[in-house]
Amino acid sequence: MIRTIGIDPGSRYTGYGIVEGDGSLLRHVMNGMVSLSGALPLPERLNIIYQRLSAIIEETHPTCMAIEDVFFAKNVKSALSLGQARGAAILAAVNAGLPVFEYSALQVKQAVAGYGKAGKEQMVKMVQYLFKLSKPLNANAADALAVAICHLNTHASKVRWGACERS
Amino acid sequence: MIRTIGIDPGSRYTGYGIVEGDGSLLRHVMNGMVSLSGALPLPERLNIIYQRLSAIIEETHPTCMAIEDVFFAKNVKSALSLGQARGAAILAAVNAGLPVFEYSALQVKQAVAGYGKAGKEQMVKMVQYLFKLSKPLNANAADALAVAICHLNTHASKVRWGACERS
Repeated sequence: MIRTIGIDPGSRYTGYGIVEGDGSLLRHVMNGMVSLSGALPLPERLNIIYQRLSAIIEETHPTCMAIEDVFFAKNVKSALSLGQARGAAILAAVNAGLPVFEYSALQVKQAVAGYGKAGKEQMVKMVQYLFKLSKPLNANAADALAVAICHLNTHASKVRWGACERS
Repeated sequence: MIRTIGIDPGSRYTGYGIVEGDGSLLRHVMNGMVSLSGALPLPERLNIIYQRLSAIIEETHPTCMAIEDVFFAKNVKSALSLGQARGAAILAAVNAGLPVFEYSALQVKQAVAGYGKAGKEQMVKMVQYLFKLSKPLNANAADALAVAICHLNTHASKVRWGACERS
């Protein structure tokens, strides 16, 4: 069994989702979001992201982190902000000894919705449906669960095909 | 007396420079660069930046970090890379309990060269001249020393004018 923490990073909203996988069977463990005031100075925001994710990793014992590999952003300014938040999330994993796996948005969408161009709302609904979640799911948490699902599916297919893997 | 670690972050080359200031008297303590292979996976690169800077902070006891506030990058991809490295550097400071001060490139150039449009080579020469450094100075280390100088100058003028400050 593998337990993965999936991350949807952002300097204002960072979603996280923990999923367990055992072969093709996936189980939702928890999800949530770190929501930060834009008025906070950047070092404080990065520190909260790092500390919150470190605490969640310590509490829930995932064996790896899955995070979306970002190539696009609205503009350079938002890419810098996103990069900083992403760096803080990755460091929380690395400092806890977890390997980090990166997946493109295309891979994540294909793994969850079976379709690389699935929209945001469609992804939320698919994640909610897959885990039979009754409460409305926050979009950032849904994205985080989606990248965790993507990792576990990729991992499962790697195991099935006998390829080596790191986690 | 204030001791500042200045940082010029990058996912391949991160310069650092430690400067002490006592009123208008500035003293060079050390400088250097963390140079990383582009072949290393991103989590490993971020971890090395974080660990190296944490070790340098522990060894040299600065009381704050100064870092350039970046608004421009060649493109979104390089902004994401830079943001991640910058996040790792800021976290090294925050986790060591240091306040972080951000300065624009304009402020740094004005503080060091007295001219907001000073070129890269001119900045290296000015830093080398200010500290009477005999060995050639790496451009990333020079940029790191420059932002530390900028902070100490700003700090000195704040003290002179009686404004409150955090460090």
